[in-house]
Amino acid sequence: MNVKETEVGRQRLYSGRILDLDKVTVTLPNGKEAEREVVMHKGATAVIAVDENGRVPMVSQYRIAINEETLEIPAGKYDHVGEDPLECAVRELREETGLTAASMEKLCVIDTTPGFTSEKITLFLARGLSLGEANPDDDEFLNVSWHSLDELHEKALRGQISDSKTLIAVLMAKQLV
Amino acid sequence: MNVKETEVGRQRLYSGRILDLDKVTVTLPNGKEAEREVVMHKGATAVIAVDENGRVPMVSQYRIAINEETLEIPAGKYDHVGEDPLECAVRELREETGLTAASMEKLCVIDTTPGFTSEKITLFLARGLSLGEANPDDDEFLNVSWHSLDELHEKALRGQISDSKTLIAVLMAKQLV
Repeated sequence: MNVKETEVGRQRLYSGRILDLDKVTVTLPNGKEAEREVVMHKGATAVIAVDENGRVPMVSQYRIAINEETLEIPAGKYDHVGEDPLECAVRELREETGLTAASMEKLCVIDTTPGFTSEKITLFLARGLSLGEANPDDDEFLNVSWHSLDELHEKALRGQISDSKTLIAVLMAKQLV
Repeated sequence: MNVKETEVGRQRLYSGRILDLDKVTVTLPNGKEAEREVVMHKGATAVIAVDENGRVPMVSQYRIAINEETLEIPAGKYDHVGEDPLECAVRELREETGLTAASMEKLCVIDTTPGFTSEKITLFLARGLSLGEANPDDDEFLNVSWHSLDELHEKALRGQISDSKTLIAVLMAKQLV
């Protein structure tokens, strides 16, 4: 079956600080028209860093969207559209944890929830870590804690990690490190 | 460090068909106020079904948000807030693939991208499959294809699966089946 939807119109409903909201009109494979609500997001990078003892720095922060404190790998949005993912990942790792890495390996690019958002996150595996000084953004309040990759993997399999990029990074890194 | 943000105000910017957009005012741990854009979503379930030969039904559909055809596990939104996740998962698996399962095991609940949305997806592992008739929604155009779990796992590790819920389900199922 042909499944292609083709955009035939787009209306910007909201222009925001971290996202925009569009109503997109599409033609369906059967020729009918439908409307789709799409959250436009410029994307982000995230980094799972593993030291020589198999330990991983994790960030706790408060996410008002779910009204919970989460345990996540370091991550951050692009500064501007078209920013190099590696550059963004290096910056976010350093700002949030103070770490720099001798090697940064790209793991994958994920669509966080393609049913309604354009957001893509590029995941990296960082190794060869050395510690400098953290420097979070002014409105970013976070705690860094270190966990063994084995422990995180066990938590993942028990359903005790909920952030999708973090789950993917932990499950992939366990296979690759 | 205390990282808690507390909601002190909320303005509905848009009420939509599958999502709403709110501007939430929070007080930060330092006492200052900040605004957060939050996409409210009622959530969904998704199912990785594995047959006795280690084969998995996957759904191809067009996602206008990323302007790509994706390969995803069967999934669907709740009919209403508070719907039982298992009931929703059973329905979506049957509608999209025609399958019913003798066992449905809950794997985890994921926050797809908690930086800006409340969306949670509950993932299930289905086994003991029997085939009936598929019955997709009227505006849902999709193809079902079968893949071995081993092949999907290889694709996942090579960065060739991008949908986050699907990546998580494949990586977890490979450890558990």
